[in-house]
Amino acid sequence: MARVRVHNFNVSLDGYSAGETITLDKPIGEAGALFARFDGRFIHGVDAVDAPITLDRALTSTWGQGIGAEIMGRGKFGPQTGEWADEDWRGWWGDAPPFRTPVVVLTHHRRAPISFENGTSFHFLDATPEDALACAQDLAGDRDIRIGGGPTTVRQFLAADLIDFLHLVTVPVVLGAGVSMWDGLAGVEDRFTVESATSASGLTHQFWNRIGAD
Amino acid sequence: MARVRVHNFNVSLDGYSAGETITLDKPIGEAGALFARFDGRFIHGVDAVDAPITLDRALTSTWGQGIGAEIMGRGKFGPQTGEWADEDWRGWWGDAPPFRTPVVVLTHHRRAPISFENGTSFHFLDATPEDALACAQDLAGDRDIRIGGGPTTVRQFLAADLIDFLHLVTVPVVLGAGVSMWDGLAGVEDRFTVESATSASGLTHQFWNRIGAD
Repeated sequence: MARVRVHNFNVSLDGYSAGETITLDKPIGEAGALFARFDGRFIHGVDAVDAPITLDRALTSTWGQGIGAEIMGRGKFGPQTGEWADEDWRGWWGDAPPFRTPVVVLTHHRRAPISFENGTSFHFLDATPEDALACAQDLAGDRDIRIGGGPTTVRQFLAADLIDFLHLVTVPVVLGAGVSMWDGLAGVEDRFTVESATSASGLTHQFWNRIGAD
Repeated sequence: MARVRVHNFNVSLDGYSAGETITLDKPIGEAGALFARFDGRFIHGVDAVDAPITLDRALTSTWGQGIGAEIMGRGKFGPQTGEWADEDWRGWWGDAPPFRTPVVVLTHHRRAPISFENGTSFHFLDATPEDALACAQDLAGDRDIRIGGGPTTVRQFLAADLIDFLHLVTVPVVLGAGVSMWDGLAGVEDRFTVESATSASGLTHQFWNRIGAD
């Protein structure tokens, strides 16, 4: 049975997963410290693991395994807000986005799908989490769905109890401000088992599996 | 640059990785306890990770990533010794061996290659570790080579300093007898950095990266 999974989701010690304002230069706003301390290189996904193979890299490399589609918020696709002023801009990733599957981009402003040679395609959808998931499942066949973020999107799917697996990475930095991972989710841990592991880099990896999901 | 990797290699507390005698019923002899305590299901390899996704499963699932060929000892392929009495027997795994790449089987008794629809093929070779590696590299293109075991094979490649990465799993069992992982390898750790992590199952995962290999 296909699952809904979140991978490599970074959270600061004070609970932020992105900065408040994203720009072309700063895709996750002022929260760059979350990734600067992070040894993941997870965009290599399923094809390779960089040398040396560390615990962080091995854990983050499960990102692509068995995944048939991703759902992301508009801010993960790019910094534009409102109507699409520049449709020539096709995402942060240039000609080879790392996803290699269909990707559903949640936005109130629809536009035509975009396809890339490496198997990635973006489909822009104005939908509830439930409807977006149904669309992603059609695109994914019997493979799993990854909720790719940002934090607002992950939070919506968690609130709707649609997440089966969450790989959370606690990064030992204090951001002081940003987009919260946890707003409105008090007690969410009751629906999951949680396994934790530390790595030499100082990160803590948490594996949340929804009770009854397997 | 392609690397030579070992993954998910189980060792008991007293240093054994297989039983002394393997049979059709007991592919790793009396060392079955090594796997009975092991939550890996690593043969799912690169395609999926079973639910729930545990630390053990995530770590072991890097097994197939970026791998273009495997080298294994004859005992991993099957229990026959000496001349091949039964060439109809095509390995422990039935019609769909989990490898999905070419596999070099080290044996003094050559036989014709075997191919399967899922991309697995077995090539029987009487060769030194160095020559087997050259053959595997031809088969793997620019992808990495996995040394698949058993322990005697891994030990030979370690002794020849041909291993770039070793994922060792210390299993908290005492076997009392078997095929040693460590015979003749005193001080081998000097050639590697080692990162360790424990998991909820009681296993300890060690990531050995050869110094200067990256």
